[in-house]
Amino acid sequence: MEQSKKLSAGILRNDRLMADGRTIRYYDTSGQNRSAKDARPVEKQPAIGELRLDPLVNEWIAMASHRQGRIFLPPKELCPLCPTTGELLTEIPESDFEVVVFDNRSPSLRPPTGDWALPDQVGPDTDLGSAAGKCEVICFTAEHGNAFKDLTPARVRVLLEAWIDRTAELSQESFIEHIAPFENRGEEIGVTLTHPHGQIYAYSYIPPRVEKMLAAANKYKTSTGKVLFDEVVAREIRDEERIIARNDRWIAFVPYAARYPFEIHVAPLNPVADLTGLTDQDRDAFAPIALEVMKRLDGVFGIDMAYIAAWHQAPVRVGRDVLRLHWQITSVRRAPGKLKYLAGSESAMGAFIMDMRPEQSAAQLREVVL
Amino acid sequence: MEQSKKLSAGILRNDRLMADGRTIRYYDTSGQNRSAKDARPVEKQPAIGELRLDPLVNEWIAMASHRQGRIFLPPKELCPLCPTTGELLTEIPESDFEVVVFDNRSPSLRPPTGDWALPDQVGPDTDLGSAAGKCEVICFTAEHGNAFKDLTPARVRVLLEAWIDRTAELSQESFIEHIAPFENRGEEIGVTLTHPHGQIYAYSYIPPRVEKMLAAANKYKTSTGKVLFDEVVAREIRDEERIIARNDRWIAFVPYAARYPFEIHVAPLNPVADLTGLTDQDRDAFAPIALEVMKRLDGVFGIDMAYIAAWHQAPVRVGRDVLRLHWQITSVRRAPGKLKYLAGSESAMGAFIMDMRPEQSAAQLREVVL
Repeated sequence: MEQSKKLSAGILRNDRLMADGRTIRYYDTSGQNRSAKDARPVEKQPAIGELRLDPLVNEWIAMASHRQGRIFLPPKELCPLCPTTGELLTEIPESDFEVVVFDNRSPSLRPPTGDWALPDQVGPDTDLGSAAGKCEVICFTAEHGNAFKDLTPARVRVLLEAWIDRTAELSQESFIEHIAPFENRGEEIGVTLTHPHGQIYAYSYIPPRVEKMLAAANKYKTSTGKVLFDEVVAREIRDEERIIARNDRWIAFVPYAARYPFEIHVAPLNPVADLTGLTDQDRDAFAPIALEVMKRLDGVFGIDMAYIAAWHQAPVRVGRDVLRLHWQITSVRRAPGKLKYLAGSESAMGAFIMDMRPEQSAAQLREVVL
Repeated sequence: MEQSKKLSAGILRNDRLMADGRTIRYYDTSGQNRSAKDARPVEKQPAIGELRLDPLVNEWIAMASHRQGRIFLPPKELCPLCPTTGELLTEIPESDFEVVVFDNRSPSLRPPTGDWALPDQVGPDTDLGSAAGKCEVICFTAEHGNAFKDLTPARVRVLLEAWIDRTAELSQESFIEHIAPFENRGEEIGVTLTHPHGQIYAYSYIPPRVEKMLAAANKYKTSTGKVLFDEVVAREIRDEERIIARNDRWIAFVPYAARYPFEIHVAPLNPVADLTGLTDQDRDAFAPIALEVMKRLDGVFGIDMAYIAAWHQAPVRVGRDVLRLHWQITSVRRAPGKLKYLAGSESAMGAFIMDMRPEQSAAQLREVVL
């Protein structure tokens, strides 16, 4: 549906339909007119994926074999995330944009047709269901060569508002249980498009790691009456040596039991369940710490660090009082020319071995001159 | 302690002490004399690692910062896993060997001094304990340039006996809860030594993935009275289309909900809890199917496939009647020049997306002409 909507901080959202029926949402600060048409020929929609249960661990695996042929590291002239020009029709019909969110062209998960529910009972014979959910792409800037750390604070504010807006809207869908906005950066971790962008995965099931966080948080609440993540932050503040940045509203630290060489958790000091709970003050204070953290990360070795930056939120319907919003940034780079790999112990057994003490990486991050 | 021990199938184990006090165990078929001394100067033992609890998911992380400087892809002339020659003193003092197992020089986990136990109650303030456990290296052959698939069936029989022997002996240690022999192959997954070898990790805790398998298996046993893995194998036999190899005693299949482009599970048809439960017939029938599977894997693209091959066993003290021995081989290679990466969805959320249908990879594996 084509529509407009006013968000916080004077940000306006304009929705437009793409040629193949997908929606693109422009998040703007200056009331831009967004009327450019998507002039590309309509392509056949990719096949719908499947969800299969791995019964050995009771985890859902999304089968998305239609993604095998997707575009791989195109040159700048063919980047589908740049604005449309006379020479190239891209995913974004306009000739410029601030932040846009559009439905993924080859989604791993997609909205179901009709009613949809996971089976209550599962086992080795559980049959496949269609892979319900939603996958969206979020572009941070029209500047192809920039990175998150090059964004202006004002742009990070728009980006945050877009994440909040998507969380709020996707939470309304009956088939969505969990929403995870994340950014993958770096060819080392498999990024296929270098234009600064992230993804929003809205799952029809609680993802396994969130399920485990939920179990730990519930157990802690039951035995102590307290919220686990709040105690974790309290411990980091008390220990102090792993804190790398803070301001009035946010704190950033390397966690006590980090599992990656450079891992940073960023959390609001006034805890909330998800992005929609952030106050205006929290929202305004995010950009400075987010930019500082990303600059420190690239500053450690003076190179573009590969990372995954993922928002952890409470699921849509459960755990709202025990799970807390935070942003986890993990980098597999342990030294220039050396990566941390997930081999036998991590991959097969799930048991992480860390080659670097968290206090050491925190010190290296703090020592970066900005 | 220097000693000799007779194992099945005429295999003899000879233990010798290395210069720094570590033990090396020779597994031989021809009664070789193993008296060569380790003539290297004694080096300082690396520092002991720590175990830290990640309270958000209640998982132990082994901190092994002393491993940061370990040897990285040395040339053949400096390979520490080749036999010792006049020019180079290696980890193996003898000038030739069949299969050897020695204590890892930079172990992530090591035997505790004195009594040791994990705390019963854990939380965000759980203090660090020393990283108890044991890490061993197992060399499959003295031939530097070979791979697992190049071993003779007789050599695979010795290798299997060594895995069985290590499982039996390590199971006797009071501080060990789970034993995982695995092989990492390929620089793509971070292998630092190309000489054909594996590792044996003996954990003082149940690794997270095993804990999850245990929970799923216990739940299934309670609700159905059956053993989950046996039902999984029954389903694969019934479906047939994902089976890639079988003989009288073993079966190999791509699991229904594989999470890697090429994933193969190899299981004995007469289920057992761990390697020590295999009968002589099972042991003798393993080499043909193991070699066939590894040849099929390399045959798919005609290249050396990077893989992790890990033995899943029941833990030492729990789940003995609900968990089953099997060998999981996973490869991140989805096409020549393309890898499967664990990015935002897999790494941050634990939610796997698979780019290839298991039936497709099973067909590709079956079509390889051996």
